[in-house]
Amino acid sequence: MYKAPVEDIAFTLKRVAGLSDAIDKGLFGDLGEDLVDAILSEAGRFATEEVAPLAEIGDSQGARLVDGNVKTPDGWAKLYQDWIAGGWNGLSAPEEYGGQGLPNMLNVAALEMWNSGATAFALCPTLTMGAIEALSAHGSEELRSKYLPKLVSGEWTATMNLTEPHAGSDVGGLKSRAERRVDGTYRLFGQKIFITWGEHDATDNIIHLVLARLPDAPAGTRGISLFLVPKFLVNSDGLPGRRNDLFCHSLEHKMGIHGSPTCTMIYGDGRFGEEKGAVGWLVGEENKGLNCMFTMMNNARLTVGMQGVAIAEAATQKALAYAKERTQGRAPGWTGSGMSPIIEHPDVARMLLTMKALTQGSRAISYVCAHAIDMSHRASGDKQHWQERAALLTPIAKSFSTDAGVDVSSLGIQVHGGMGFIEETGAARFLRDARIAPIYEGTNGIQAIDLVTRKLPLSNGGQVKGFIAELRDTADQVRRSNLDSFGETASRLDAAIADLEQATGWLLKAQADGKLAEALSGATPYQRLFGLVLTGCYLAKGGLAGVSDGAGESRIALCRFAAENLLPETAALRDSVVNGAASLAAARIALA
Amino acid sequence: MYKAPVEDIAFTLKRVAGLSDAIDKGLFGDLGEDLVDAILSEAGRFATEEVAPLAEIGDSQGARLVDGNVKTPDGWAKLYQDWIAGGWNGLSAPEEYGGQGLPNMLNVAALEMWNSGATAFALCPTLTMGAIEALSAHGSEELRSKYLPKLVSGEWTATMNLTEPHAGSDVGGLKSRAERRVDGTYRLFGQKIFITWGEHDATDNIIHLVLARLPDAPAGTRGISLFLVPKFLVNSDGLPGRRNDLFCHSLEHKMGIHGSPTCTMIYGDGRFGEEKGAVGWLVGEENKGLNCMFTMMNNARLTVGMQGVAIAEAATQKALAYAKERTQGRAPGWTGSGMSPIIEHPDVARMLLTMKALTQGSRAISYVCAHAIDMSHRASGDKQHWQERAALLTPIAKSFSTDAGVDVSSLGIQVHGGMGFIEETGAARFLRDARIAPIYEGTNGIQAIDLVTRKLPLSNGGQVKGFIAELRDTADQVRRSNLDSFGETASRLDAAIADLEQATGWLLKAQADGKLAEALSGATPYQRLFGLVLTGCYLAKGGLAGVSDGAGESRIALCRFAAENLLPETAALRDSVVNGAASLAAARIALA
Repeated sequence: MYKAPVEDIAFTLKRVAGLSDAIDKGLFGDLGEDLVDAILSEAGRFATEEVAPLAEIGDSQGARLVDGNVKTPDGWAKLYQDWIAGGWNGLSAPEEYGGQGLPNMLNVAALEMWNSGATAFALCPTLTMGAIEALSAHGSEELRSKYLPKLVSGEWTATMNLTEPHAGSDVGGLKSRAERRVDGTYRLFGQKIFITWGEHDATDNIIHLVLARLPDAPAGTRGISLFLVPKFLVNSDGLPGRRNDLFCHSLEHKMGIHGSPTCTMIYGDGRFGEEKGAVGWLVGEENKGLNCMFTMMNNARLTVGMQGVAIAEAATQKALAYAKERTQGRAPGWTGSGMSPIIEHPDVARMLLTMKALTQGSRAISYVCAHAIDMSHRASGDKQHWQERAALLTPIAKSFSTDAGVDVSSLGIQVHGGMGFIEETGAARFLRDARIAPIYEGTNGIQAIDLVTRKLPLSNGGQVKGFIAELRDTADQVRRSNLDSFGETASRLDAAIADLEQATGWLLKAQADGKLAEALSGATPYQRLFGLVLTGCYLAKGGLAGVSDGAGESRIALCRFAAENLLPETAALRDSVVNGAASLAAARIALA
Repeated sequence: MYKAPVEDIAFTLKRVAGLSDAIDKGLFGDLGEDLVDAILSEAGRFATEEVAPLAEIGDSQGARLVDGNVKTPDGWAKLYQDWIAGGWNGLSAPEEYGGQGLPNMLNVAALEMWNSGATAFALCPTLTMGAIEALSAHGSEELRSKYLPKLVSGEWTATMNLTEPHAGSDVGGLKSRAERRVDGTYRLFGQKIFITWGEHDATDNIIHLVLARLPDAPAGTRGISLFLVPKFLVNSDGLPGRRNDLFCHSLEHKMGIHGSPTCTMIYGDGRFGEEKGAVGWLVGEENKGLNCMFTMMNNARLTVGMQGVAIAEAATQKALAYAKERTQGRAPGWTGSGMSPIIEHPDVARMLLTMKALTQGSRAISYVCAHAIDMSHRASGDKQHWQERAALLTPIAKSFSTDAGVDVSSLGIQVHGGMGFIEETGAARFLRDARIAPIYEGTNGIQAIDLVTRKLPLSNGGQVKGFIAELRDTADQVRRSNLDSFGETASRLDAAIADLEQATGWLLKAQADGKLAEALSGATPYQRLFGLVLTGCYLAKGGLAGVSDGAGESRIALCRFAAENLLPETAALRDSVVNGAASLAAARIALA
C-alpha cells in the first residue's frame, strides 16, 4: 500500500527545486520550512490513510451512469467532502476568494500525493484548480465573486470542455455554437467529448468551462470563445437554482482511471429549461477563448505531469516491497539459506533502480517547473525570465513525467512476474491508469512540437542557452566535489549536456533555415533527451545538497546509477535529432 | 480490423529466414514454394475472417467459471472446432500421428496469424503443440499411441502445469506430490496456478502435463518428474471415460487475454474418483521431468515470442489505418485543403515507422529461430551448429519480440490519441494482452540470464562469434550494394555489430573470471542490444533480397530508418553492459 514519501518530496522541493532559497529570500512572505513540512506531512497522511485505500474500489466499480446521473464509486463522494474540509482544494488559490495563497510548488507536491493515492479521484480537483486559474485571470468581477469562493472551497467542481469528435489536438476545428442574448448572456449548443468529471454526485453544482463559436466568429482558433456554463443556474442568494440545459449523455469505457467519469456532454438540446440552449457567460473577450483556455491548459499540463510522477512513485513502492518479500532462486553472492529475495538478482535491482531514478527525475523536473511558475508571479525584476523558464519546462515536465509513469508502471508489472498481470495485485492498474497521461492535455507529440517551435526560440534562443549553462554548472559542481561515490557522473553529465546543446543548436538552425519538417522529425527524441539530461542534473543536485544528511549517500548512488546507465541514451537521441530526419522522410513509402 | 500480412510473412520466411534456400537444397522433401504460399494464404484467410472477428467478444466477455466448468466466450468453442477441422493444429506435428510434418517455420508463421487474430484464443493450441513435442520426444510408445493422435488432430487439448504459489521462475521449489502405484500408474496431489486453458468447454478431454515430486525425490530441480494426467481417464476404446480427480478451482482476473482461462488447478483432493489422487502416467524417467518440460518450454518460448510479433503487427495495422483516416492540424508541407491526415505529421510517422521496424525485426528474428530449429532436425552433419543457433536465438526471440509487443502496442495507443484509451477502439486491448508475454514462459530477465550464462558459452563462445561474423557479412553486403537508398545503414550496422561484439567479449570474460554478478547486471541491456542488431541486419537482408521486387524500395527505406534511428541505442546498451555493473551494485543502498 502506498505511503506518501514526504521526506523525498520535501527534500526535492527545498533543496533541488529552489523552495528553500526562495523562502530565505523572503519571496513567499512569512512561509517557513516548518509550515511546509507540516503541510506536506498532513497531506501525506491524508493521501496515505484516506485516499489510497479507496483506489481499488474506484477501479473495480468505476463511475456509473444511472438514469442520467453519474454515481461515483462507493465512498468517493464522502472522501471528496473530507478532502475539501481539510482545505486542500484551495492550497495555492487566491486568498481573496478563500484560498491559502501558498506557492504553487506546494500544491503540486500535494497533487502528487493525491494522484499516488488514486489518480482517478485526484483528477476531479485538478480540473477545478485549472478553472480557478482561468477565472482568476480572465473572468469578470461578477463571475469571479459569484463562482470563485465556491470553486476555491471545492464546494463546486469545474470542468474543461474542449474536445469534440473532430476537434482534439486541433481544437480550431470545434463546432459548438454560442448565441448572444440581449441580457448579455449566451446560449450554448453542441456536443463535447472526453469531459473529465463532467457529471458526478459529489457536489451540488458543477461549473463547466466550454469553448464554442459565435455566429460571426472567424474560422479556426481565432474564432473561439470561452463560456462559463453551470450545471445549475446560480440564484441571487448564491445557491444552485434551476437546471441548465446540459447533461451527460454517456460515459466512456476506458482502459484505466475507471473511477473518473469521462463524459460526453450535450449542451442545449432542450432537455432542461424552458428555452433551448444552455445558459452561459462569456469568460474574457469574444474570440479570445483560446488564450483563456491556455491559462488553464498550462496549469493542467504540469498537473498531468504530476500524474505520471505520482503513478511512478506508487508503482515503485509496490514493486520494491514485493521484490523484498518474494523469494525465487539464489542470486549470485547470496549467502542466506534457501531462496533469495528477488531484489538480490541484479536484473531486478536494475529495474527497481531505473524506476526510482525516473520517478525522482520526473518529480524534480516537475517541481522545478512549478517553482518557475511561482517565481514568475513573485520574483521582482525577472518575471520574463521565470515565465520563459516555466514555459520551457512545461512540455518537458508533462511529457517526460507521463512517459515515466507508463515506463515505470510497466516495469513494476515485470518485477511482480505473473502476479503483476493479476488485477488483484494492483500493479496492472498503475499501467492502465498511467496510459492516458501521455495523451490528454496535449499529446506528448504536441508537447514536443510546442517545445521545439515555441519554447526553444524564446528570447531568441537565449532562454534555453542560459538554462544549459546552469546545467553545466551542476556538472562542474559534481566534478569539484571530488566524491568518489559519484563515479563517472561528471563526465556523463558533460557528454549528455553536450548532446543537448548540439541538438538544440541544430533545431534552432533548422527552424531558422525554414526546415520545419526536419525539426519536427526530431521533436520527440529531443524532448526525451532534454528530460534525461534534467534527470541527471537534478539527481546530481540532490546528491550534492544532501552530502551531509543520512540519505545523502544513497542519493549520490542513485544519481551515479542514472548517469552511468540511463544517460548514455542521450547520444542516440541526439543522433535521431540531427541525423534522423532524412531517413524518416524517405521511409514514408513504407507507410503507404 | 486485422488483415493477415501474408506477403510480408512469406517474404520473411523465404528470403530472410532461409526457407527458400532450404527448399532449394531439398531439406524439406517435396515441399515447394507454391505449397508454402497456399498454406500461408489459407491460414491468413482463416485468421482474418474467422479468428479476428471473435477477439473483441473474447476480451469483453472473458472466460467464466460456472459451477466448476469453464465457459469460453460466445463462438469460441465453434471457432476451435472449425480451426482443427482445417488441420491447423497438426501443421508441423509428426506425420505418424496424423500431423502434416511441415517445417516448424510454417507453423510459427501460422501461429503469428492466429495470435494477431486473437491471442487469447491462439494460446490454447499453443499449449497443445508444446505437449505434442514433449510427448513425442519423451513419452512411452503406449502414451504416444494413446494420446498423440487426439492431440495432433486437436480433438483434445493439453496444458503445462509448472507454477505453484511459491515456485514460479524457480520451479525447483514446487511441492506437488506424486505417489507410485503397483500398476505402474501414479497418483498426484497438489495445487497448480496460472494454468492456461486448464479447463474449458471446447473439447471433450484435456491432457495435463504436470510436474511433481516423488516421495524419495532429491530436493530442487533434480527431483522433479513429469506426469500425464488427463481430465477424463481414457477407456480402452480410446474414448474419455471416468472423471479424474482434478478440477479447476478458480480463474484469475487478469489485465488482458481475458478469453483465455487462467486456472488454479487442484489435483487429488478427492472430489472425483473413488480413491483420492489424480491418476497420472510418467513421461520420460523419474526425476528427469525438467528435461522433458524444457522440450516443451523451448518451443513455448518461441511461440510466446510470436505473441509479441503478432500483437505488434495487429497494433501497427490498426494505428496505421487510423493515422491515414484521422485528420488534425496541418502538417508541414501539407498542401491539401483542410486538416491533414495525422500520418503526415513527422512525429506520428516516426511512431508508425518505429512500430513497423520493431514488428518486422522481431518477426524476422523469430522466423530465423524457427528455421534453426527446423535445420537442427533436418540438416545433415551440422546438427550441433543448428541446435546451438536455435538455443542462442530462443531467448532473444522470446524477449525482444515480447518487449516489442508491449512497446508497439503502447505506441499504437499513442497514435490513436484519446480514442486509444477507449476500450471500444481496440487499441488498448493490444497492450493489455501484450503485457503478459514478457513475463510467462520465463520472464525476459530469466531469458537474459539464460542467454548470458548458458547460450554465450556454447562451443566455448564459438557459436556467438560465428553468428557475429555472419552479421558482419550482411553489413558488408549492404556496403557493396552501393545503393544510395540504404543511406548510412552499412556504417550503422558496423557500429552496432562492434557494440555487440565488445559486449559479448566482456560478458564471456566476466564469467570466465568468475564475476557472475557483474555479468548478470548487464544481461538485459545485452539481450536488447542483440535484438536490435538482429533487427538491423534482418531488415537489411530483406532490403538486399528484395531490390528487384515492387516492395523492395520500401523495405530498404524502413531498414535505413531503423539503422539511423533505432540502432544508435546499441552504444548506450553496450555501455550499460561493460560499465554499468559497478554503479548498479553501489546503488543498492538506494533500494534499502
